[in-house]
Amino acid sequence: MTFEIKERDAAGRLCQFTTKHGNVTTPNLLPVINPNKMMVTPKEMKKRFGTDILITNSYIIYKNPELKKKALDSGVHALIDFDGSIMTDSGTFQSYVYGDVHLDPIEIVQFQRDIGSDIGTILDVFGTPGQTKEVAEQGVLETIERAKKSMSHKGEMLLACPVQGSVYPQLREYCARQLSALSADFFPIGGVVPLMENQRYSDLVRCILAAKQGLDPSKPVHLFGAGHPLIFSLAVALGCDFFDSSAYAKYANDGRMIFQWGTEKFDDLTELPCSCPICSKYSKEELTELDAKERTMQIALHNLYVSFTELKIIRIAISEGWLWKLVEQRASANPFLSEALRVLREPDHLQWLEQYEPTSKKTALFYTGPQTMYHPTIFRYHKRLFARYEPLFQTTVVFPEGTKPYSLFYSREIVDILKQKNVNLVVRSTLGPVPLELDEMYPLAQSVFPLCVDQETREIAQQVMDRFLKNNEVIVWKEHLMIPTEEPLTHPIDFDKRRISAVADMQFGVGASEALFTGKIHIVKSKRTGKIRNIICDGSHVVSMRAEDGLFTLKLDGGRRLHRRLKYPLLRVIVTDDAVPFIREGKSVFSKFVSDCDPDLRPYDECLIVDEHDMFLGVGRTILMRDELLTFRHGVAVKTRESTKEG
Amino acid sequence: MTFEIKERDAAGRLCQFTTKHGNVTTPNLLPVINPNKMMVTPKEMKKRFGTDILITNSYIIYKNPELKKKALDSGVHALIDFDGSIMTDSGTFQSYVYGDVHLDPIEIVQFQRDIGSDIGTILDVFGTPGQTKEVAEQGVLETIERAKKSMSHKGEMLLACPVQGSVYPQLREYCARQLSALSADFFPIGGVVPLMENQRYSDLVRCILAAKQGLDPSKPVHLFGAGHPLIFSLAVALGCDFFDSSAYAKYANDGRMIFQWGTEKFDDLTELPCSCPICSKYSKEELTELDAKERTMQIALHNLYVSFTELKIIRIAISEGWLWKLVEQRASANPFLSEALRVLREPDHLQWLEQYEPTSKKTALFYTGPQTMYHPTIFRYHKRLFARYEPLFQTTVVFPEGTKPYSLFYSREIVDILKQKNVNLVVRSTLGPVPLELDEMYPLAQSVFPLCVDQETREIAQQVMDRFLKNNEVIVWKEHLMIPTEEPLTHPIDFDKRRISAVADMQFGVGASEALFTGKIHIVKSKRTGKIRNIICDGSHVVSMRAEDGLFTLKLDGGRRLHRRLKYPLLRVIVTDDAVPFIREGKSVFSKFVSDCDPDLRPYDECLIVDEHDMFLGVGRTILMRDELLTFRHGVAVKTRESTKEG
Repeated sequence: MTFEIKERDAAGRLCQFTTKHGNVTTPNLLPVINPNKMMVTPKEMKKRFGTDILITNSYIIYKNPELKKKALDSGVHALIDFDGSIMTDSGTFQSYVYGDVHLDPIEIVQFQRDIGSDIGTILDVFGTPGQTKEVAEQGVLETIERAKKSMSHKGEMLLACPVQGSVYPQLREYCARQLSALSADFFPIGGVVPLMENQRYSDLVRCILAAKQGLDPSKPVHLFGAGHPLIFSLAVALGCDFFDSSAYAKYANDGRMIFQWGTEKFDDLTELPCSCPICSKYSKEELTELDAKERTMQIALHNLYVSFTELKIIRIAISEGWLWKLVEQRASANPFLSEALRVLREPDHLQWLEQYEPTSKKTALFYTGPQTMYHPTIFRYHKRLFARYEPLFQTTVVFPEGTKPYSLFYSREIVDILKQKNVNLVVRSTLGPVPLELDEMYPLAQSVFPLCVDQETREIAQQVMDRFLKNNEVIVWKEHLMIPTEEPLTHPIDFDKRRISAVADMQFGVGASEALFTGKIHIVKSKRTGKIRNIICDGSHVVSMRAEDGLFTLKLDGGRRLHRRLKYPLLRVIVTDDAVPFIREGKSVFSKFVSDCDPDLRPYDECLIVDEHDMFLGVGRTILMRDELLTFRHGVAVKTRESTKEG
Repeated sequence: MTFEIKERDAAGRLCQFTTKHGNVTTPNLLPVINPNKMMVTPKEMKKRFGTDILITNSYIIYKNPELKKKALDSGVHALIDFDGSIMTDSGTFQSYVYGDVHLDPIEIVQFQRDIGSDIGTILDVFGTPGQTKEVAEQGVLETIERAKKSMSHKGEMLLACPVQGSVYPQLREYCARQLSALSADFFPIGGVVPLMENQRYSDLVRCILAAKQGLDPSKPVHLFGAGHPLIFSLAVALGCDFFDSSAYAKYANDGRMIFQWGTEKFDDLTELPCSCPICSKYSKEELTELDAKERTMQIALHNLYVSFTELKIIRIAISEGWLWKLVEQRASANPFLSEALRVLREPDHLQWLEQYEPTSKKTALFYTGPQTMYHPTIFRYHKRLFARYEPLFQTTVVFPEGTKPYSLFYSREIVDILKQKNVNLVVRSTLGPVPLELDEMYPLAQSVFPLCVDQETREIAQQVMDRFLKNNEVIVWKEHLMIPTEEPLTHPIDFDKRRISAVADMQFGVGASEALFTGKIHIVKSKRTGKIRNIICDGSHVVSMRAEDGLFTLKLDGGRRLHRRLKYPLLRVIVTDDAVPFIREGKSVFSKFVSDCDPDLRPYDECLIVDEHDMFLGVGRTILMRDELLTFRHGVAVKTRESTKEG
């Protein structure tokens, strides 16, 4: 198995997952195939939806002598006629639905291995939401015990060990941690179907977050039994990679059609509000006239089209950086889902999410309501503002609120005069305080806020502002404002220098600006836009400022300066000795060669590449954050930008 | 032409519109056909999308000698090979884009008539957003003048007179009122393209609302130049019936694909996040490999699939009563659209919207955020609570907040005891105060609120609660609360009677309960649910309570009682004498036979049907509200439920 991150957004990731039977792009959906009764054949799924992974139930095969024999003789791939990756479930869910299923936990793992399943599942103990903590704990311990015993029987099969723990986050996290320690291959989050059936999405979110916090981040995570596209985007944003759908068939049997916004009864519809090939081929009337079995199959196909399309939208949203926006759009269709998003505002969860949030995106940050103030990107901005930005002067001029910090309502000329004075210039914005030096930096210039925002948003922004201005003498800017003449105006600091210093400290940490910009500074600006492009210090190009996000790209000399000034392990990704020659050749850093890194590095951060003796090797851009860097065995961890040819 | 309302939700309507060339269900989209260059032929549109109305440009035909001759010889239907309804535009938009087009306003109307256009458009004066009020007013006056002159030249053609007025609501409303007075047939809202191009959706909403407030509600309204599905649902909710799309082709030429949530560049996409027949047939790679012209056409088809599907979704949302929910979902994709929804919270607009809002729906009201507190249904509930509900006693017991007023957190037994006491029982809910007598009535029992709502919501609910309790002695309920013994407990009013009285007054107005329930009351309950079903008063069945919305259905005897007690024109729909025999036969009331009605009647309200001398004819349920009842010439105004056989 290989599993590597290709793109990312929120705590979600677009990965390539490989089994003996081929590649799968995640996030993805495993349609559930009932070997007894296939409503849609795997071949048809492959043809219509490009399905290259699916799930079937080993327990059903095991219990049916005919299927069992065929599976043992020719393998599960032949049994269901599919040459992609096959995951098998173990009968746990059947035991939850029908009570005790009389299965030997080891035997069912061996059976899955013997029929050639690509991913087999242990017989875990299904934890229900109604359990006491004690009962749930027993189930978790038994699940861990069975996982341990199963590991030695898996052979070449990948083994999926479901995370249980009912609605107790501590148990979920404990279970996840223990299973991760066993080096299992694949982690379903189990026991969540009753939560989804009752729309207990807040509890579902807590379960996912707790499990993710305990899990090895380098392994695929599967939300077991999640088949309705309504919740896919949220689950992906929290780090789930796989879903499985029997819903397409169950709902079809029940005459219900799945839509992005929920489910509708076929009989209630006056027309088909969808353009999938089924709904484009048939009118409501034509579908009604089909015989019942055929109609059910067509509805099942529609359900699959909608489900797979949602995953395509999610993958696009990840690569373009608007996954949170998609999550909010979907949540707006359901009050319980929308309530569940509030769980993410809790400080612990926000802290966890911030670690995974990319530092820069292709898509602007859109204001959608008070929840935007709890966006991990805004949370990070506020955090760094207090930790890394130092107002230079005693006096601060506060500009009135503009819709966007970069489109202020006052004349450029006056601002230009103010920029020459020894005062801090800060805009009161809906994102909180925005020092003018930072106004081109992501997410400040890359955010879209309407004029009219919620009161709650204003209050949060005001609180941050108050805290920010606490120790400053404040002048609220008015047209024709003159800065008091008693203020000494000697030696004003050039505003471009103020800008590059502030951005450097915000991006790399306190001390970075001093390290990078000590010496004779030459700032090269774009002729077309007048914006800062390159910064030359003592004749050497140290950093470039990117037009798209106003953040710096590190050059080799800039890296050297930061390396000298910032103490180990700040800003560093540490590679093992055997990787050094490859880095020197300019090759990217693969995760398996990373031995440690600065815990404050975030995805898409600029970083220093060093060896285990902290020798400077080069500069690059991270793809992974620390927990991932330390666990992933496959894929690129850091894209090397420039490297030193020798030590 | 006929135009009649079949279903409705918000201020939107699902209508049947008929021209000489057939029926069209609205809301609908008119694809723009460029007669010089058809990217997709009308035939193909008919086949793929069931297109039965489209729009082409008479100015382009007029200016091209060849097209002009053909159109005059064989008609515009033959020219573009389409046998459905054809609307033609006049060149106004071209004059906006290219400057003066040298057209005679009368000549172009005559030309449209002569080529057999089903709906021709006057050459109105395009008002741009940047105009001063004076310039805009000149344009409006000239537009009205041209409309007046054009009317006598339209022949059998329907004449569309665009409402102009730039961004000045008063001008928009004035223009709308003047054009309506001319009895024009069809009302585009013009001059809005620049607003949409700049995402000035708040201004767009104000323009639509102002126009709608001035327009004859019985005529189709077309949002001119609106081709992106993102705004369809909002425009429909405000009463727009038609859109036109050249966007499908323009965007395709530009390599852009339309989606529900916005627009994406084809080149930027890694896969196609859609399941329409185009995106199901081709992969991204396959589409890339097509030659440019063919690819553009396929993208145009995709754009049309997405656009037409959005209209299907909107029509389903109207018939199922979740149009506002859809509007909010779409708005969540765009901060400016979401900002525009705030305009609807302004008291004047809310007042206008409330008039059109159905009094009962098939779908529950879902909480989506503070905006839900400004939902016309909630607004109406609060309004009626203060106008029509009278607390019976001096003392009010307030129950703590429950998620839903009907699923209280306390024991049923205690509540049952309290119900026998002389105190008001009120639940503190997120919808505001809910007297226990009303807790099964729409929208109280038919709303879904999560446990955790926004602070703004709580504050609004609290304000209404405070106002409601102002003159009452308040006891906040706690477990084991005992009502003070000094309180006289004699003659408690049976709670079922309290319930039917309160609901009757809320639904029909003050005095209704006294009229309906004076005499010996017998309440028939459902054996299965224990809920109130029928109320017999002095041996006669006066009303039934509906299980789905907890509101009353009027029986003939109930109608008689209300008719005696409630003064003219309360609760009445007044029909002309020639309709009387039909009503007596139990036929429904057609709008053209309505001479007036109670201005407080709302869609789907129970009503009294009377003749012009206020003789009671029967009871029914309204389909239309007053402004509609007085203007619509086609369709059912009131569904007669029961009628008297003689006077």
